[in-house]
Amino acid sequence: MVLTDQVSYDGGIENVQRLPATDDEFGGVVVNMIEHMDPDVFRTLLKISMSQWKLQGKKGVWIKLPIDLSNLVDAAVKEGFRYHHAEPTYLMLLNWIPETINPIPGNASHIARVGAIVLNHKREMLVVQEKMGVLRGLWKISTGILHEGEDISAGIVREVKEETGIETEFVEVLAFSQEHKVFFGKSEILFLCMMRPLSFDIQIQETEIEAAKWMPLEEYAAQVSGQEQGLRKYITELCIANIGRNCSGFTPLPVTLDSDGNKSYIYLNKGDLSECFSI
Amino acid sequence: MVLTDQVSYDGGIENVQRLPATDDEFGGVVVNMIEHMDPDVFRTLLKISMSQWKLQGKKGVWIKLPIDLSNLVDAAVKEGFRYHHAEPTYLMLLNWIPETINPIPGNASHIARVGAIVLNHKREMLVVQEKMGVLRGLWKISTGILHEGEDISAGIVREVKEETGIETEFVEVLAFSQEHKVFFGKSEILFLCMMRPLSFDIQIQETEIEAAKWMPLEEYAAQVSGQEQGLRKYITELCIANIGRNCSGFTPLPVTLDSDGNKSYIYLNKGDLSECFSI
Repeated sequence: MVLTDQVSYDGGIENVQRLPATDDEFGGVVVNMIEHMDPDVFRTLLKISMSQWKLQGKKGVWIKLPIDLSNLVDAAVKEGFRYHHAEPTYLMLLNWIPETINPIPGNASHIARVGAIVLNHKREMLVVQEKMGVLRGLWKISTGILHEGEDISAGIVREVKEETGIETEFVEVLAFSQEHKVFFGKSEILFLCMMRPLSFDIQIQETEIEAAKWMPLEEYAAQVSGQEQGLRKYITELCIANIGRNCSGFTPLPVTLDSDGNKSYIYLNKGDLSECFSI
Repeated sequence: MVLTDQVSYDGGIENVQRLPATDDEFGGVVVNMIEHMDPDVFRTLLKISMSQWKLQGKKGVWIKLPIDLSNLVDAAVKEGFRYHHAEPTYLMLLNWIPETINPIPGNASHIARVGAIVLNHKREMLVVQEKMGVLRGLWKISTGILHEGEDISAGIVREVKEETGIETEFVEVLAFSQEHKVFFGKSEILFLCMMRPLSFDIQIQETEIEAAKWMPLEEYAAQVSGQEQGLRKYITELCIANIGRNCSGFTPLPVTLDSDGNKSYIYLNKGDLSECFSI
């Protein structure tokens, strides 16, 4: 454990006034636990530390617990900490001391998904059928979730290549939609990306994809799906618009994306779209 | 606790074969713990349940633990569970049984932030100075983080009203940027929104905002900031473009948003922009 406070530490409680901590940029402190500690010792140290930090006027107190210190979670909660976020290998807890409203941003709220509109010179669109999930059996565009720290323009090239074997070049984000309560209460933003195909021979990813093919745009548009109808409609219109000319720009149009009637918005240029389709 | 398996439960271990669970849509099960349980009983039940679920070919096993059951976290981890995500009041753990790659989407990866471009008829922009944070002392546009389940177009109206007292109407998303490692390794998408002011008398939010005013666009553009220079440049250009005409549409331009040189992209219509500014 890195000792940034001026205390000595020998694994016991006698020589330690408080848990080692570093200051954060919001007037609080961060306790980054690394070594194992007896839960009772930890709780006592935490109690002493909290009273000192309160006297010092500290605001948020953070504790980062690696998963192999899961035996300390209960002690932190008992001392008034709440969960802030977790990743597979650690849990972050927060105790906001002041009476004022906690200004600390909450956990990440959005899943970022990318979808690829890949058209060949015969007005055919690259479509896939997934092996699992609610859209199984439906011909749809290739989509995927961005990896941590991945750019939209890179993630969509990776996804198309992984699912279909097709090499593509990112052209632009044609539109994006925002949908709520997609996964454990989180929202999702789907970026619809226009992609230029650089290869044409399909090789599917066997684990996730049932089939992939080049499908005439009109045939794609004709498919009926309760779940995707609204989005599909705009995808098709954007495709057609982009064959003839550029229709770009983003204002929200309400889209009903699921059977519960949850309203979402797709952001696109209604002005350009109306020029193209007289809607 | 809701018993969806056909087992009886009286708080002991004798009459229970496994923990009550419901099937999920990915071929796995969800254990939604509600009532208190002795950690040793819980661990024994979990061990028995896991072996049965394995025999049944179940895939992902989820355990949702409310924060007042934090004394069960350690037992779940000891039985091979990993954290999936946490919110202030609960922790979700996952144990992926198959040897194959876990296809379950990870935690939400993005914070969604909105920023308001509010121009009055005198080519003045609504700007604020924040009380805290790294941008303190700088005149900047009003920004804020979307609440859970909040639409972009609604969230930006709320933020401007909260920070400045100005009533606005959402017009369109002019551009968005994606930045990585903003907060605990999470990425952030900032949606730049063109807003039409419906009122003009400023009343600041005392807790977060130091000052707010209408600032000539040229003066705003002239400010020098190591952190916002790239973004600020595009905000100004987008503002000027929108005074004369609509410049919409989104392709990525690299922007360096922080002092570490982390590259981000702002998505806008370079074609339209080049017509407007000959870049």
